[in-house]
Amino acid sequence: MLFVLPVFAIDNPGVVATSKSSLSDTNFFTLVSDGLPCSILVDESDATGLLIATNNLSHDFGRVTGHDAQIINDLGSAKKLIIVGTLESKFVKAMSKSKQIDTSLLKGKVESYIMTVVGNPLSGVDEALVVVGSDMRGSIYGVYELSEQIGVSPWYDWMDVPVERKENLAIKKGLYTAGEPAVRYRGLFLNDEAPCLTSWVKNTYGTNYGDHRFYARVFELILRLRGNYLWPAMWSWSFYADDELNSKTAQEMGVIMGTSHHEPMARNHQEWARHRGEYGAWDYVTNQKVVDDFFRKGIERAKDNEDIITIGMRGDGDAPMGGKEGHDDEYVARDKETIALLERIMANQRKIIKDVTGKPAEKRQQVWALYKEVQRYYDLGLRVPDDVIILLSDDNWGHVRRVPSKEELKHPGGWGMYYHVDYVGAPRNSKWLNVTPIQNMWEQLQLTYAYGIDKLWILNVGDLKPMEYPISLFMDMAWNAPKYLPENGGLSTLERQLNDFCAQQFGEEQAPEAARIFNLLCKYNGRSTAEMLDKGTYDLHSGEWRQVVDEYLKLEAEALRQYLSLEPSYRDAYKQLILFPLQAMCNVYEMYYSQAMNHYYASLSWPEANKWADNVERCFKRDSLLCADYNKNIAGGKWDGMMTQKHIGYFMWNDNFPADKCPKVFRVNGDVSPNYSFSSSQGYVSIEAPHYQESEDATSGAKWTTIDGMGRTLGGVALMPYTLPVDNACLRYSMHIPTNKDSVTVHIVTNSTLPFLGAPGHRLKVGFQGGVPKQVVINERLNENPENIYSIYYPTVARRVLDTTVRIAVPNADPNGLFVVYHPVNLEIAPLDPGIVIEKIVVDWGGYTDTFLFSPESETVRIVNR
Amino acid sequence: MLFVLPVFAIDNPGVVATSKSSLSDTNFFTLVSDGLPCSILVDESDATGLLIATNNLSHDFGRVTGHDAQIINDLGSAKKLIIVGTLESKFVKAMSKSKQIDTSLLKGKVESYIMTVVGNPLSGVDEALVVVGSDMRGSIYGVYELSEQIGVSPWYDWMDVPVERKENLAIKKGLYTAGEPAVRYRGLFLNDEAPCLTSWVKNTYGTNYGDHRFYARVFELILRLRGNYLWPAMWSWSFYADDELNSKTAQEMGVIMGTSHHEPMARNHQEWARHRGEYGAWDYVTNQKVVDDFFRKGIERAKDNEDIITIGMRGDGDAPMGGKEGHDDEYVARDKETIALLERIMANQRKIIKDVTGKPAEKRQQVWALYKEVQRYYDLGLRVPDDVIILLSDDNWGHVRRVPSKEELKHPGGWGMYYHVDYVGAPRNSKWLNVTPIQNMWEQLQLTYAYGIDKLWILNVGDLKPMEYPISLFMDMAWNAPKYLPENGGLSTLERQLNDFCAQQFGEEQAPEAARIFNLLCKYNGRSTAEMLDKGTYDLHSGEWRQVVDEYLKLEAEALRQYLSLEPSYRDAYKQLILFPLQAMCNVYEMYYSQAMNHYYASLSWPEANKWADNVERCFKRDSLLCADYNKNIAGGKWDGMMTQKHIGYFMWNDNFPADKCPKVFRVNGDVSPNYSFSSSQGYVSIEAPHYQESEDATSGAKWTTIDGMGRTLGGVALMPYTLPVDNACLRYSMHIPTNKDSVTVHIVTNSTLPFLGAPGHRLKVGFQGGVPKQVVINERLNENPENIYSIYYPTVARRVLDTTVRIAVPNADPNGLFVVYHPVNLEIAPLDPGIVIEKIVVDWGGYTDTFLFSPESETVRIVNR
Repeated sequence: MLFVLPVFAIDNPGVVATSKSSLSDTNFFTLVSDGLPCSILVDESDATGLLIATNNLSHDFGRVTGHDAQIINDLGSAKKLIIVGTLESKFVKAMSKSKQIDTSLLKGKVESYIMTVVGNPLSGVDEALVVVGSDMRGSIYGVYELSEQIGVSPWYDWMDVPVERKENLAIKKGLYTAGEPAVRYRGLFLNDEAPCLTSWVKNTYGTNYGDHRFYARVFELILRLRGNYLWPAMWSWSFYADDELNSKTAQEMGVIMGTSHHEPMARNHQEWARHRGEYGAWDYVTNQKVVDDFFRKGIERAKDNEDIITIGMRGDGDAPMGGKEGHDDEYVARDKETIALLERIMANQRKIIKDVTGKPAEKRQQVWALYKEVQRYYDLGLRVPDDVIILLSDDNWGHVRRVPSKEELKHPGGWGMYYHVDYVGAPRNSKWLNVTPIQNMWEQLQLTYAYGIDKLWILNVGDLKPMEYPISLFMDMAWNAPKYLPENGGLSTLERQLNDFCAQQFGEEQAPEAARIFNLLCKYNGRSTAEMLDKGTYDLHSGEWRQVVDEYLKLEAEALRQYLSLEPSYRDAYKQLILFPLQAMCNVYEMYYSQAMNHYYASLSWPEANKWADNVERCFKRDSLLCADYNKNIAGGKWDGMMTQKHIGYFMWNDNFPADKCPKVFRVNGDVSPNYSFSSSQGYVSIEAPHYQESEDATSGAKWTTIDGMGRTLGGVALMPYTLPVDNACLRYSMHIPTNKDSVTVHIVTNSTLPFLGAPGHRLKVGFQGGVPKQVVINERLNENPENIYSIYYPTVARRVLDTTVRIAVPNADPNGLFVVYHPVNLEIAPLDPGIVIEKIVVDWGGYTDTFLFSPESETVRIVNR
Repeated sequence: MLFVLPVFAIDNPGVVATSKSSLSDTNFFTLVSDGLPCSILVDESDATGLLIATNNLSHDFGRVTGHDAQIINDLGSAKKLIIVGTLESKFVKAMSKSKQIDTSLLKGKVESYIMTVVGNPLSGVDEALVVVGSDMRGSIYGVYELSEQIGVSPWYDWMDVPVERKENLAIKKGLYTAGEPAVRYRGLFLNDEAPCLTSWVKNTYGTNYGDHRFYARVFELILRLRGNYLWPAMWSWSFYADDELNSKTAQEMGVIMGTSHHEPMARNHQEWARHRGEYGAWDYVTNQKVVDDFFRKGIERAKDNEDIITIGMRGDGDAPMGGKEGHDDEYVARDKETIALLERIMANQRKIIKDVTGKPAEKRQQVWALYKEVQRYYDLGLRVPDDVIILLSDDNWGHVRRVPSKEELKHPGGWGMYYHVDYVGAPRNSKWLNVTPIQNMWEQLQLTYAYGIDKLWILNVGDLKPMEYPISLFMDMAWNAPKYLPENGGLSTLERQLNDFCAQQFGEEQAPEAARIFNLLCKYNGRSTAEMLDKGTYDLHSGEWRQVVDEYLKLEAEALRQYLSLEPSYRDAYKQLILFPLQAMCNVYEMYYSQAMNHYYASLSWPEANKWADNVERCFKRDSLLCADYNKNIAGGKWDGMMTQKHIGYFMWNDNFPADKCPKVFRVNGDVSPNYSFSSSQGYVSIEAPHYQESEDATSGAKWTTIDGMGRTLGGVALMPYTLPVDNACLRYSMHIPTNKDSVTVHIVTNSTLPFLGAPGHRLKVGFQGGVPKQVVINERLNENPENIYSIYYPTVARRVLDTTVRIAVPNADPNGLFVVYHPVNLEIAPLDPGIVIEKIVVDWGGYTDTFLFSPESETVRIVNR
């Protein structure tokens, strides 16, 4: 079967997609023929990063065909080739010289590539697909674009996206490019790396820190996503100090390193923290010499690489200047002094840069982060030199705090945005799952770009997983932000991006449904993090709690339907992106809803409280099982440790509690009589028959028996056995009704029992305690007589319930009373024949409308002094 | 691994269950050792039915171990054996004679067996497990009990229940018996065999009727379930005429045949119908001779077998006497004549029986069915001779019509019950799925037995599938009805029966959850059949419709969780019993709910109507895919044709419509303006922001853009792009509010956008058209100032919405008016800054309580003349 590559580079309007062709079609260049891929020619002295990417491309062909593409460094006998290179490649230079390719298209461009099919590119070669980059990263992006096009997702490793086998692949001839990036620096910040990332790295690499093997995988992902920048994990890890190959690997692979907003001068916080005894206080006022020396060593180490230097300073461990570590939101009220100090610090920092690099400070890229209180200093007038990137930030929850004014936009160093999809801070940490609604992220990032923030975008992604999608969206928007602007069809671009993302991971056919489900999942998760959720988040009595749980359950059912419809090889990826987070969050919702129900019923001493308590405990247990399944079973346990974040038991913002803790439940002792009265402002009460307040069994020994599950809703109640007389048996229901109603209509909903004992049928006595009861026959017309059979008999029995109504007087009513209050009354129902199953009771004083289920049960109030 | 058989025969209180032992334990007899089963000794001249069952037992051992048990007819070298036989077996006689077994336990018993381990039972045999029956069926039940105990479900064939491999099996020594049946005749009625059973038989056997191969499988199932009786399918099939091996097979295997209530004298309706041209009218008045002759041939054919003879007569094709075929509920008002005629008919029928059999009529078991109008004749005094079983019936929907009085109970022939879980008739056929709530069936069957109806129970099961569980429950109750009486713990017996049933099909561990889900499924399905369901069944506006759909979806999610947790070999069975019927019914619910929503929105010319229309069509399509999956994929397509019943498109009771038909939907043309006004009696209206009635874009060109999915519920609305001025833009919402309110509180719920353009923040103008608007700043305090950061800023942004309230005046109010009516007003919202995303609006005149989702959207009324 011939497989034609879809055309990519959608930014090149001259290229048209085609879906059908054959290998002999001269409009196509063959990449894979009968399972064998083209060889790849690369100049061995070309940029190391490109050589690494080329090697990955070779393996990607292997993933697709079963045979790695051969990498050659010299022209051999191959007549058809893939040629990759930067402008420095000798092969590229030769093709350029012979005018076989036009490299002027890349002139002055940053991180760009062209991909095109060239006839007779080099001596002895008939035809080649040539991928040339304006620079190392440009060529790498071109190479990984080819990987994507042959069917290798950037997430093949980090989300176990399967690679479909293909026997024949061809690319339509044309000139392809993804253009230049809209945002110059596009990066991720690995933050709060414990316990998840730390555990996973330990389980995977045996190290207590991320070493170069770990970071190489992160770098590869970033590059496949066309990113170029990383702030490494910094809680207990130290990128520079833990493994000196880390920095080297970054430079070789082509990823620019930075340090977080509070780690100036290319040094990790841990580099200071681990030597605090030796270094003393992280305080520029009292300990300047040591701090300056610490800064200097950072620049000395970084002077020959691409790393972007963070300047400025915060307090120790991400606290505000003058604040305490761990109190990073503390307000320290000495702005004037701090501003003066920061001016001095930054001047000294730039002096160190100049001294160490031997070049003017403006020759080395720097960034200054206006995170938290630092933005206030900016607003109060603190400024940095023209060349420094000013990094604005969101509020840690995805809302942009500030955009530059038109005037500020003139700052030549440009503006950046530090954005979060994971956060350690108030009101509660958000570290467990992806809770960012897609539209919210788009809305804020499009405004970020619209207001001119395009020099640096960095995304705080926590442990990296499970933030797969927000990472992709962030990188896609950073590369091609204009497409996402409303005036360029922003929302439809977003929609297409989500669908394309899902198609890349699950295939075209499954994409729309996966996108629909995933979109709703992000939306629902955006309502409240698991960390913030508790029994009181939603309103119980209006049905809101149940509604939100039901929405999750519906989505879970739909996701499970899709999961089952997937080829098994796709299920690991689906579980990571959709099924696990959905089931896990749904379960947490079920748990807190059950807790809310438990507390409500327990307050009434109602035995159903115990069922809900069981449910809380079952859900709590299930939470750990779901996480264990993620850790131990997905992709054969590949992600062991990645899903170990605490998320149940928060009581303040941080997670300083020993372990997930089951929410508190109350048990109701069966010996305690429930003590409640039904009440409602809706003009009626609806009561489940098993919820009687008191009962009297029959003198004969027949007992009131609750038949769980009988009837349309909760259950039925009947005197059993049926062969004993029913004398003196009675059920009593407590309720509060308005004093100004002197009569009410009672609906007795029973099973549609036929008059099996003969005429007149089954009789009940109904009345209020202290009043005069009425007698009623429930099934008098349930027979096959011509006047009943079609109008009453069949319609009733096929729907299995009888709704018998009777109007009864209310004792102690005050129909003309000046004030309407609610008074307690007890409804008594006494069967006069055996075989009646009572299922629901509605007492209506004017508000009831017939519905199939006879209305949800009314609220109850606890009766304190009966 | 040693596997010990659980002890069965729970009716034998002398036997105690044990779970641990070893093969060398002298308390146990080894049935399977290292994968090899004992041989089975049977007298080859014993009852054919037993020989057949023994052969099945041999294969059952094969299913368990991979090796069929060897059947031997003579003593050989085996020292340990299983010996099976009736009291007529020469081996049994020998053991009885040598007093190795005590057959007196079976004396005078019906359909009973004992199972016991005997030392030196026969010469040269050290030890044997002996299974002896009081008669052929008793011995067969003993044999199949052993099958069950070694792990073969009675449903292994009809529901593809997997058989677990076991290497070692032993039975605890003891004396086991299941006692005698509580109900003498326990049977099924295959009814309405087209299209499902007919299609499946055609696909499976290539015949247009059920031949003896088909019936042998049915008989085997009945016997494994300890039933003994069958009314064969009779719509277009003729048991006796289609294949003369049918009747022979029944007799050989040990199943007693009957004919349905309207097919007297052991003849099938089709035997007359196919020859109507020749025979003339089915009318005893005008065509007695032919009819009598027809009767006589039935008895001649049946005279040497066990078949129970149905006597009496209905009209042609199950119509009442004197009625028309196809009108079986017709009321024919000539009871006196009919009764006289029936007396004559039955007298003649008994005369024919006597003539043909050569014995008094009372020597041949007969049954007279009081189905439908025939019960009236009984009530009017029509009687049958003492020996005839009087068969009462339910109403076709599972409610017992009548029980015998104490006096009537003295009728020596005894009483029977004809019960339904499948019905062709009013108000709509119920043929597609199992819709009988478990508790309802128990409740009516326990009363059946409690009132002395114990001679014959027969269950109308339609096509047999998917009625697996009701069949099992029916047979279990018929065998051991006393256990199910309330005074003997009826409900807990029922609960245990359901759990045991699920354990037998899915294993002990999965049983409780399967039982819970299945029980709820039956309960929900009992509310309404798919055939009766339509868009109006449930109330839309109270949320009832959504509630019932959500209940199904929750259950489906739970079933899918369980399905995935099953070993794959169990999934076919689970799909048949639980997952298919649940998904199929849930889908039908989703379909009609979507139709209800479609019609509601269409009535308002609201574009969302189209989404719901799509949903109806998607569900309709999915219905056919689910059925196709049942037919084509379960057990590799084994049940092809079994799920072909029409169930969408009923408009009267019968299914005389060509095919399932997609429910009608309405499409809303996007050009038509929606025309509605929000209204509510709850003291407020809540409105989803995208549901504005009119909008004005900004003069600058900024346009109102709906961001689907943003916000907590439906979506957000924003003027975009943000970089253009917002001048003159406005949204207008229509609503009706009480005239006596001169001011209201408006909640404007927006995204928690920060004041990213600087102080004072984002401003809105809010007011009623024709009134004086007020200006409000939505995010004035959304900043990190100490007074805001923890109290306002973080709690708000982490929850992603802002609720800004403003009190505004209502124009044209009449606060002192005598009558309170609702008048139309238009709320106008105008942004004064770009970047505001409006998500929900609540206009409160006194009834609103804060909830997390700002209340479900209020109802709307259509405005006819704007």
